[in-house]
Amino acid sequence: MRNIRLIVEYDGTNYCGWQRQENGPTIQGEIEAALAKIFQEQITINGAGRTDAGVHARGQVANFRADIQMAPAAILRALNGLLPPDIVIRAADEVSFDFHARYSARERSYSYSISRKPSALNRHFTWELNYDLKVDPMRWAAASIVGTHDFESFCKANSDVEHHRCTVLAARWDENVDELKFSIRADRFLHGMVRALVGTMVNVGRSYTPLEEFVRILEKKNRSEAGQAAPAKGLMLEEVVY
Amino acid sequence: MRNIRLIVEYDGTNYCGWQRQENGPTIQGEIEAALAKIFQEQITINGAGRTDAGVHARGQVANFRADIQMAPAAILRALNGLLPPDIVIRAADEVSFDFHARYSARERSYSYSISRKPSALNRHFTWELNYDLKVDPMRWAAASIVGTHDFESFCKANSDVEHHRCTVLAARWDENVDELKFSIRADRFLHGMVRALVGTMVNVGRSYTPLEEFVRILEKKNRSEAGQAAPAKGLMLEEVVY
Repeated sequence: MRNIRLIVEYDGTNYCGWQRQENGPTIQGEIEAALAKIFQEQITINGAGRTDAGVHARGQVANFRADIQMAPAAILRALNGLLPPDIVIRAADEVSFDFHARYSARERSYSYSISRKPSALNRHFTWELNYDLKVDPMRWAAASIVGTHDFESFCKANSDVEHHRCTVLAARWDENVDELKFSIRADRFLHGMVRALVGTMVNVGRSYTPLEEFVRILEKKNRSEAGQAAPAKGLMLEEVVY
Repeated sequence: MRNIRLIVEYDGTNYCGWQRQENGPTIQGEIEAALAKIFQEQITINGAGRTDAGVHARGQVANFRADIQMAPAAILRALNGLLPPDIVIRAADEVSFDFHARYSARERSYSYSISRKPSALNRHFTWELNYDLKVDPMRWAAASIVGTHDFESFCKANSDVEHHRCTVLAARWDENVDELKFSIRADRFLHGMVRALVGTMVNVGRSYTPLEEFVRILEKKNRSEAGQAAPAKGLMLEEVVY
C-alpha cells in the first residue's frame, strides 16, 4: 500500500467544484475517473480544500492510498494524458502512509481578484466591479482579521464544523493598476469564508459598511450580519502547507 | 462625420481572427455587428493588426468614421453591453479625421508566451513545450534581429506586401519560473512574422538550429528556410503606438 500526493492546478469555470457529486463534473470526479482508468480499480482521493463551483486552484493538494507499483512520475504523466486540459497535475510524489491532504495541512492560502474594469483575458478569474472602492479602509479591515478569531459570521450557515475558530496568519489587499488582489493565509478556512470576507470588505471599500461595523460583524458570530459572498470565479486556492 | 478610436482587448480562442469573414465569428465582425445595432447602419472598422485565428490582444486599436452624435464614453458602454465577454472595449475616444488605426501606426508590440509545463489556468495563452530549451542562444537570436532587416524568411508565402523590410526596435526573451516570454516591438510586422520567429528561435533553444544558421536564415529571404510557426494561442498583440 502506497500513499501518493498530487499537486493540482485547475480552472474551475466548467466544474461543480472539487467534491465528487452525481449532478455534474467535479475536479475530484475527473481525477478519480482517470485513476480508475490507469489502475483498473476505484480509488478515492482526499483534497486539502473542497473548493466550490467556479473556484480555481493553483496549488490544490490531494492524496490517495493504493496498492500500486507505478512510479509517481509515471502516474503524473498518465494522469495528465487522461485529464481534460483545464485540470493539470503539477507534481506527484510518494509520502508517508499517515499523510492526509486535508487533515495534515497546517496552512492554506487563497487569493481573490477584483478587477475595476471588464477584462476579456481574465474574465473567468476576476470579479468585475464598477464601484469606486477605497482601498485603505479595505486594508484596515484585512488587518483587523489577522490573529485567532471566531469566524462564524463569515461561515456558510449549517456548516458541519466543531468550532469556527481560525488563525489568520496574513491578510492583505494589493493594488495593481485596475486589479485589486486579496491574499489570505490561515491554519483553516470555513465554508464560504473568503468569499464572505471579500464581499463584506468590498462593502467597506464602497463606504457602505463603516470599518467599526466590520469589526462588530466579526464579533457578532452570525452569518446574517456579514455582506453577500463575492462571486466564486475571483477565488483561487493558491497553496497548502504541511 | 466623426472618427472614433477604440482600444480592444480580446481572448481570440473562439474566433477566426480579427478580420471579418463569412465562415466564422471574428473580432471585427462582432464589433461591427454591435455598432450596427447601436447606430442602425453598417459601419466598417479598421484594425491596426489583423491577428490570426486564436491570437489574442491586450491593446488592439481600431477606428471607424461615421456621422454620429453619441459621446465616446457612451459608445464604449453601449459596445461593452452588446459584445460577448471575450471582447472588451477598453477605451473609446474621438480622434482627428485623418487618423487610421492601421496606416497611422508607428510601432506595434507583441508578446509570445511559452510554458515549460502544462498549465490549466493559462492553457489558452501559452505554448506548452516539453523541450529542454537553452535560453541564452534564444536571447542572442533575438538580439540579432534588432535593427532594420528584410524579414521575407519569416513572412507567410504569398503575402501581398510591397517589401519585407521591418525595423525591430526591441526583441528579447524573459524567463520566469516555468514561463519563457518573447517581447518584440517593431514599426511593422509581416503576416505570420512573430510566430515564425518564435518557432525558429525555439529550434535554436533546443539546439536543433545553430545560432549562425539562424542569422543565415534571415539573410536567405526565403520562408522555407525558417522553422515551423509557433501556435497561435501563445501570441498577444500588446500595444500599438501612434
